[in-house]
Amino acid sequence: MESYEESRSDRKHKAILEAATAVFLSKGYDGTTMDEIAASAGVSKQTVYKHFADKEQLFGEIVRATTDQIDGLMRLVAETLAVAADLDKGLSQLARKFLTALMEPRLLRLRRLVIANADRFPDVGRTWYEQGFGRVLATLATCFRRLAEHQLLDLYDPLLAANHFVGMLLWIPVNQAMFTGSVRRRSKAELEDYADAAVRAFLRAYSVKSEVAKSSVRSGRPSQLR
Amino acid sequence: MESYEESRSDRKHKAILEAATAVFLSKGYDGTTMDEIAASAGVSKQTVYKHFADKEQLFGEIVRATTDQIDGLMRLVAETLAVAADLDKGLSQLARKFLTALMEPRLLRLRRLVIANADRFPDVGRTWYEQGFGRVLATLATCFRRLAEHQLLDLYDPLLAANHFVGMLLWIPVNQAMFTGSVRRRSKAELEDYADAAVRAFLRAYSVKSEVAKSSVRSGRPSQLR
Repeated sequence: MESYEESRSDRKHKAILEAATAVFLSKGYDGTTMDEIAASAGVSKQTVYKHFADKEQLFGEIVRATTDQIDGLMRLVAETLAVAADLDKGLSQLARKFLTALMEPRLLRLRRLVIANADRFPDVGRTWYEQGFGRVLATLATCFRRLAEHQLLDLYDPLLAANHFVGMLLWIPVNQAMFTGSVRRRSKAELEDYADAAVRAFLRAYSVKSEVAKSSVRSGRPSQLR
Repeated sequence: MESYEESRSDRKHKAILEAATAVFLSKGYDGTTMDEIAASAGVSKQTVYKHFADKEQLFGEIVRATTDQIDGLMRLVAETLAVAADLDKGLSQLARKFLTALMEPRLLRLRRLVIANADRFPDVGRTWYEQGFGRVLATLATCFRRLAEHQLLDLYDPLLAANHFVGMLLWIPVNQAMFTGSVRRRSKAELEDYADAAVRAFLRAYSVKSEVAKSSVRSGRPSQLR
């Protein structure tokens, strides 16, 4: 019976998290009440409080769960890169998957919500930054260090190279989404072109075979994403 | 008499904008009232409404004025670059000034406020993006195109190169500030190191003399800014 109870509790926990995410995203932090979350999750308000001490803790939990998902994706992709026969293709696959995942409308809206409340709940913003950004950069840096050890990349500071990689990949599309309100879903081709352009520039900057990488930059299609 | 009246009106307009900026930044959009702005500017509420139709228009005006300042800075810096004898030094000067300007705590807080309200006031977010981002990127792209014409840069798409330049320069420091709540003022040396590292990577990716640029990357100090 205990395991049945446990799984029922787990299901409720998950249902509350999902309902709360939807309410937060549509009404903002201040516009959200625990009553509404309970109603939307189909549980009593008492049950919500049994799982989460208060609204802030619930918000923090959503952010942590999201950063865990991103980190999981990165590990998967980094493993792909580690076994890729072709650095160019491996990096392009990594860049495309990562950009596509980060451009998910739900994730972008949550990101905006975290920024909006970073002054009031510094812990939540810090979690997003350290557990999201920080871990992704560390995973990438480990990956780049290994590639440098195999004489495939030429760099003295893997973490700095990781910063540059994600900066070229994400600065424009993510900010466009942050500032231009309605988060429209980009076409797959648009994102892939943009990702490939970042990879080409990265390889020109950091590849050992810089002349090879260079020629591939010039033959690339211009990106449509500005 | 008319010009005296005009300048008095200008002064009031400016005082209201300044007071409103301070109140918005400390209380957020919803926490700000026209009453408080009037009191803080030392004018009547009627006067505030004579200058600005409503709170939203006032907020939009603050954003527009800020993007104009950034654009002004960029033009100045781009002109410096155009006459720089040394591409490396010119770019480094541009990157340092731009990063320092964007990391001003007041600007970062305003940026966060715009993102927080981009869903509700898409026009304000769009203004920030198009008049801020867009113009800066266009100015940079023009600059890079000219350098390519003079065989100093090797690129097929100046706007894409501009995207990559600002991405490497800004992604980490700006997001760190967005997510980690209290906006601490970074040391000048920290920002300069980070700016120089972005310039070195950019030159490796886009300089005609890629071998020269490459050697300068490897001799650079590692950046402290993660």
